[in-house]
Amino acid sequence: MPFPAEQQIPTFPPPESESDESWVWSQIKAEAHRDADSEPALASFLYATILAHTSLARSLSFHLANKLCSSTLLSTLLYDLFLQTFSSFPSLLSAAVADLLATRHRDPACVSFSHCLLNYKGFLALQAHRVAHSLWSASRRPLALALHSRVADVFSVDIHPAARLGKGLLLDHATGVVIGETAVVGNNVSILHHVTLGGTGKAGGDRHPKIGDGVLIGAGATILGNVRIGEGAKIGAGSLVLIDVPTRTTAVGNPARLIGGKEAPSKLEDVPGESMDHTSFIFEWSDYII
Amino acid sequence: MPFPAEQQIPTFPPPESESDESWVWSQIKAEAHRDADSEPALASFLYATILAHTSLARSLSFHLANKLCSSTLLSTLLYDLFLQTFSSFPSLLSAAVADLLATRHRDPACVSFSHCLLNYKGFLALQAHRVAHSLWSASRRPLALALHSRVADVFSVDIHPAARLGKGLLLDHATGVVIGETAVVGNNVSILHHVTLGGTGKAGGDRHPKIGDGVLIGAGATILGNVRIGEGAKIGAGSLVLIDVPTRTTAVGNPARLIGGKEAPSKLEDVPGESMDHTSFIFEWSDYII
Amino acid sequence: MPFPAEQQIPTFPPPESESDESWVWSQIKAEAHRDADSEPALASFLYATILAHTSLARSLSFHLANKLCSSTLLSTLLYDLFLQTFSSFPSLLSAAVADLLATRHRDPACVSFSHCLLNYKGFLALQAHRVAHSLWSASRRPLALALHSRVADVFSVDIHPAARLGKGLLLDHATGVVIGETAVVGNNVSILHHVTLGGTGKAGGDRHPKIGDGVLIGAGATILGNVRIGEGAKIGAGSLVLIDVPTRTTAVGNPARLIGGKEAPSKLEDVPGESMDHTSFIFEWSDYII
Amino acid sequence: MPFPAEQQIPTFPPPESESDESWVWSQIKAEAHRDADSEPALASFLYATILAHTSLARSLSFHLANKLCSSTLLSTLLYDLFLQTFSSFPSLLSAAVADLLATRHRDPACVSFSHCLLNYKGFLALQAHRVAHSLWSASRRPLALALHSRVADVFSVDIHPAARLGKGLLLDHATGVVIGETAVVGNNVSILHHVTLGGTGKAGGDRHPKIGDGVLIGAGATILGNVRIGEGAKIGAGSLVLIDVPTRTTAVGNPARLIGGKEAPSKLEDVPGESMDHTSFIFEWSDYII
Amino acid sequence: MPFPAEQQIPTFPPPESESDESWVWSQIKAEAHRDADSEPALASFLYATILAHTSLARSLSFHLANKLCSSTLLSTLLYDLFLQTFSSFPSLLSAAVADLLATRHRDPACVSFSHCLLNYKGFLALQAHRVAHSLWSASRRPLALALHSRVADVFSVDIHPAARLGKGLLLDHATGVVIGETAVVGNNVSILHHVTLGGTGKAGGDRHPKIGDGVLIGAGATILGNVRIGEGAKIGAGSLVLIDVPTRTTAVGNPARLIGGKEAPSKLEDVPGESMDHTSFIFEWSDYII
Amino acid sequence: MPFPAEQQIPTFPPPESESDESWVWSQIKAEAHRDADSEPALASFLYATILAHTSLARSLSFHLANKLCSSTLLSTLLYDLFLQTFSSFPSLLSAAVADLLATRHRDPACVSFSHCLLNYKGFLALQAHRVAHSLWSASRRPLALALHSRVADVFSVDIHPAARLGKGLLLDHATGVVIGETAVVGNNVSILHHVTLGGTGKAGGDRHPKIGDGVLIGAGATILGNVRIGEGAKIGAGSLVLIDVPTRTTAVGNPARLIGGKEAPSKLEDVPGESMDHTSFIFEWSDYII
Repeated sequence: MPFPAEQQIPTFPPPESESDESWVWSQIKAEAHRDADSEPALASFLYATILAHTSLARSLSFHLANKLCSSTLLSTLLYDLFLQTFSSFPSLLSAAVADLLATRHRDPACVSFSHCLLNYKGFLALQAHRVAHSLWSASRRPLALALHSRVADVFSVDIHPAARLGKGLLLDHATGVVIGETAVVGNNVSILHHVTLGGTGKAGGDRHPKIGDGVLIGAGATILGNVRIGEGAKIGAGSLVLIDVPTRTTAVGNPARLIGGKEAPSKLEDVPGESMDHTSFIFEWSDYII
Repeated sequence: MPFPAEQQIPTFPPPESESDESWVWSQIKAEAHRDADSEPALASFLYATILAHTSLARSLSFHLANKLCSSTLLSTLLYDLFLQTFSSFPSLLSAAVADLLATRHRDPACVSFSHCLLNYKGFLALQAHRVAHSLWSASRRPLALALHSRVADVFSVDIHPAARLGKGLLLDHATGVVIGETAVVGNNVSILHHVTLGGTGKAGGDRHPKIGDGVLIGAGATILGNVRIGEGAKIGAGSLVLIDVPTRTTAVGNPARLIGGKEAPSKLEDVPGESMDHTSFIFEWSDYII
Repeated sequence: MPFPAEQQIPTFPPPESESDESWVWSQIKAEAHRDADSEPALASFLYATILAHTSLARSLSFHLANKLCSSTLLSTLLYDLFLQTFSSFPSLLSAAVADLLATRHRDPACVSFSHCLLNYKGFLALQAHRVAHSLWSASRRPLALALHSRVADVFSVDIHPAARLGKGLLLDHATGVVIGETAVVGNNVSILHHVTLGGTGKAGGDRHPKIGDGVLIGAGATILGNVRIGEGAKIGAGSLVLIDVPTRTTAVGNPARLIGGKEAPSKLEDVPGESMDHTSFIFEWSDYII
Repeated sequence: MPFPAEQQIPTFPPPESESDESWVWSQIKAEAHRDADSEPALASFLYATILAHTSLARSLSFHLANKLCSSTLLSTLLYDLFLQTFSSFPSLLSAAVADLLATRHRDPACVSFSHCLLNYKGFLALQAHRVAHSLWSASRRPLALALHSRVADVFSVDIHPAARLGKGLLLDHATGVVIGETAVVGNNVSILHHVTLGGTGKAGGDRHPKIGDGVLIGAGATILGNVRIGEGAKIGAGSLVLIDVPTRTTAVGNPARLIGGKEAPSKLEDVPGESMDHTSFIFEWSDYII
Repeated sequence: MPFPAEQQIPTFPPPESESDESWVWSQIKAEAHRDADSEPALASFLYATILAHTSLARSLSFHLANKLCSSTLLSTLLYDLFLQTFSSFPSLLSAAVADLLATRHRDPACVSFSHCLLNYKGFLALQAHRVAHSLWSASRRPLALALHSRVADVFSVDIHPAARLGKGLLLDHATGVVIGETAVVGNNVSILHHVTLGGTGKAGGDRHPKIGDGVLIGAGATILGNVRIGEGAKIGAGSLVLIDVPTRTTAVGNPARLIGGKEAPSKLEDVPGESMDHTSFIFEWSDYII
Repeated sequence: MPFPAEQQIPTFPPPESESDESWVWSQIKAEAHRDADSEPALASFLYATILAHTSLARSLSFHLANKLCSSTLLSTLLYDLFLQTFSSFPSLLSAAVADLLATRHRDPACVSFSHCLLNYKGFLALQAHRVAHSLWSASRRPLALALHSRVADVFSVDIHPAARLGKGLLLDHATGVVIGETAVVGNNVSILHHVTLGGTGKAGGDRHPKIGDGVLIGAGATILGNVRIGEGAKIGAGSLVLIDVPTRTTAVGNPARLIGGKEAPSKLEDVPGESMDHTSFIFEWSDYII
């Protein structure tokens, strides 16, 4: 086998002399080459989606366009839209790179950057959302909503184009995530599947949660209303949260109770959104005696 | 800009001299014209889906056929099926109009009727369900189940074709909704995403919930068995309901507890399925002390 | 009508002289003939998907290939992959037959074997997973992950290709099911929609649940971590389970409490995964007093 | 085999009590049933295209729509267009029936009416032309030209939508036929492949040939300019015709010479467009001496 | 009707202050607006193909990509290829504009520039050929040949990517045109359908015709071998030409005879490729005696 | 560049120790590897069509299925059909290999075997015809005719499935070729585009030409009726042939005259179908005097 994968796929983290973006893109191409060589049945897909492209922005635009197109929204139209938006707003690509790094770092099931780029519906839904959000912000709302609808159909991920999301995000598994119009999500947040950041009532206005940096939200958690989840907080799987959760505090249960909190200085370094510890804290609160 | 949108898009509610259906359809066309003029990239989609059609029934049939088709169930076949069913059962279209009005009225994120028609997977799943239900009722069960399957794949909304649903419904976000074979849902009900109206056991027969008029069911609520949820009841987000819930009563928690109830005459006018107040009532029940 | 359906569709169970596979396949063809005769609009679909094929393996390969294909993963490529895998690993087809029998036996809404084969997204996701798992086991991981991704997009069912699943499984409704990399599921298990068998933390290794034979897991239940759910246990709808659940024991609530257990010898014959009794046991634990 | 094809496929010609259209349609359905029974691999196609439909107009509309659609002209749009046009202009369907009868009668390679309906690109191009011509006549020229373009791409048959064509036509093989804007073709004409009825010069106006009833035009013949080809004339294969050809006269050669003519009263009954004798007359003119 | 088409569609020729390209593009957009307003059924196509685009290069790239794509050569890939080539070689677009002007000027059936851009398979095949030729010249031969193959399939026009073609060309009707590897075609040439510029023998090297400026080649003419067709020559329909044809000379017949020639000074101004007089000259040569 | 193409692409002819089929297939894969390495934009196509496959039969089946599929004849169905037919009739693949060798040998524009396999519509139409012919011979006529129709639409090549064709054939350019039901074509024949082997009259029976081994038929030649074209004969471009042509004789003109013939022993070695000399012989006959 002529391709010494161990040598050519650089190890994490990137050397300081390179930007994250070029480093991640070269990594992705090396992975795709290795996989195309070992799996001829997948080589066509890998060449079309990654190896035929000259940049991550083009590869991602191509992949999203072919995932999200339909008989009435053509892939060529979407491809144009993605290419132009990534070109106009370079920060969108930086955010995509931060998400790739976050996914690789936090999810032990993520075996490579190309695995995330190609197959993570949460990652792809996030990138499409960022494009929709830039359209929304530019008052191109009907187009933003059409794109939103395609993401909701194809990935079962429903993020309103007005929602403001940070970077370094992980939407793990992602199916069923719903994030409402006035929600705000900070950086380095990890959100599991079936999580709702929902509103309440039929009045408009600011009515959805505000999620601080580094928060971890477990599978199936429902957070409703214009509440604040402080930096580094953890929301337990299956929790129903209707109140503010202070910084570095844990909320668990239905309805959620708060445990821990700021008085835990020894854990200041630990960022739940990054450590992805979904369960240990729940034991602090619940007693499982039968 | 030659299109004075403010003048041409009529304001809600329709003048008394017009039927809801013709009023809503003219509204939708005016909105689509405005959006096509302002967003050339979307104009092709808007013309194909709305502006090329002479009636709401044709527009909806076209849109559903192109959303739900697959390589083995052609869009032309589905288009025929939808056209013929809407033509044979005019009440299906009245129900669609009632759903459009309900969505616009209750969901502050819904910016226009065309937004709902084009992009709300819950709305589209409901209309496809009604067609599947009419096929089921006409003993065309294999076709009804094939259509049901397409809706479950494309929208992640799983409504058994035998389920009987009222009108003026809002399936908000809609991903993950499951409604079983013998379920009945009244009029003016609002159901959030991830809601289950499920059966229990492997015996056949009448085994799914009966939901009264004006009920509000919050995100992720699970209602199991042949239980009755009375008119105007509220089911809290994330609740697990295994028992009857009386009229105008609230059920919250896992398992659900009942609060409020008929003894609240001052709230008689308020229909939860319409007010969409998902959270305030939960505070009446839960105490958040840490 | 020339086709005496009653005579030609054999009754369950199959006569002893026949294998399950040939019996089920002849059953499916008889059902499809009956339905094609009664519903011309569906006949094309039934011929393409079932009646044109000479074996269940070919029919299933064709149907999965056309369901899971995309513009970058062609149906012909997937068809080849499924055909070759079913041919190389006959046990995959036996498992499919066991799943068909389980679905027909346990789900009162399942009206025929062909109904399950054609329309049950849980059944189809399971069969695609088994193919992905065989690829994973043969170290063809990039291809296994690409297939996994298509199943997650199309069916909103997310089963990691490394997860080891038994046979005779029912994934009812199936939308939103998530099963992680190191999860193990026994035989004759029934899993409702929105169920998570999830991991915790960002460390790799054995971190997902182990589900014993005959377990029933209710809608929306979340089981996290490397915990053991013993044979014949029941997990209530909406439960959050973070601990081992002993054999024939029931876990309900958020967080889950255990009830019943081994001391119930009179129920030894009853297999919850087969009886599908989702709710009665919950009453043993919760008191609904208002 | 339960389908006694010999009995159910009526013999030609139709009994006097039936209209050609209903007789031909019942014939087509009987043929399709016979073929679907004998060839499972084709049954899906036959059901989708013929057997699922309630009339020849619907079957033909469906088949043309799926043949002529493209990624920018959707099958559902074309289907609508064909259905509405056949419904508004019943003479189009009569002409289609006359063409079916003509093809079956004149072409020994045509084994059945369904063979012609499904597979003869000349027949299909003619029917699409008639629809385009009705659009042209109704001043819907851009749509007529778009349809013309699809026919030219898909069938390599280029008939200007303004050309006026009779009925009972056979376009045998059809590839490469070009018929210009001001051409007129009578009834019961047979035209082989690569035939041109072309104009000359860049001036507009009436500049294309006029073809009388019952004319036969051999393969590769080129007729240019506003010339008249009289009733019952024959144009030899490969001929170049720039002059009028009198009634019942034969033109052969490049440039064409005329032979025979009105002085042959004994052949008055013989209609060349129906007898399809392409070659014998050429011997009357040419001497093959080596 | 708010769109005064007469005012907004500028008359030919363009005012001197404008480039041909910007003038033609504004013309095309005005025509498309007019047609979209008058024909809602076509509006979606016109917006997708013309009105959503910011330049002729983008519109043409989009249209060609959607015409020429297949299940194994995706529209997004072709779109990229066309966009990049038109961007790198601006002369390709100038040639396209010259062809548009030539078609509009010479073909009385061409009713508008958008008619040619959208519907003329000869025009579209020429533009795709020019892209293929630029790939061939850049030694990207496998890609050039793949594009050549798509053009031959979709348009039945077979121009070898190595052939060198001028501009201001009209390929009228175009079906069946074959132009070989070493052929050269000058400027302002008009070529009818079924014309062959072919080689002879199995030896490589320079073996195809060289066509001078302003030549007119009639339908079905076959020119074989490395012969020179002088400037302003005419080749009659159906001719077989194996010899050089001098400047301003006419060749007709099978095999072709030469008539006229340089001794006709009074016709010096007349360019046959532009006047499109296909037939008058043939009478000078042939005698039609019956 | 790691792939030393010069070494790995074997030179023609194959070494004696190898079968033509395995040698040609290894050649094709080497060419495709070389081209995929040099042209990333084409690599996806090359991997999907050639490099992912384990045999020429699979590659050819895949390519034909994706070329010939339509919305009503799925690629998976056609793929199955081609695979099974090539597997049942190994001689079909031998004929394909002979055609590949013939094309490479005779056509100087053919740069590689993969060029022919991927891009020559004549080659592909021939292979599809052979499959259709085997279906016809097995009395699966409706399926044979459906396949015939797809070939006529997609490639504009119309070969009746009953026609019996030899091997080592070259259909160069191929557009417009028509070969009738009772035609027979020998081995090592070369047929240019627009050639007709047609019948005459509306009577059935044996009515099409019989073409001997090694015949060359020039572009646009029309041969009509049950005539015999002897071994090694040449038919000039644009000829109209209605009579037998003896062995090693040349026919040219409209109508064709015969020249040369058996009395030319010195040319016995020369096979016109292989030498592809289309024009020199015509000079022997025609005098070009102006």
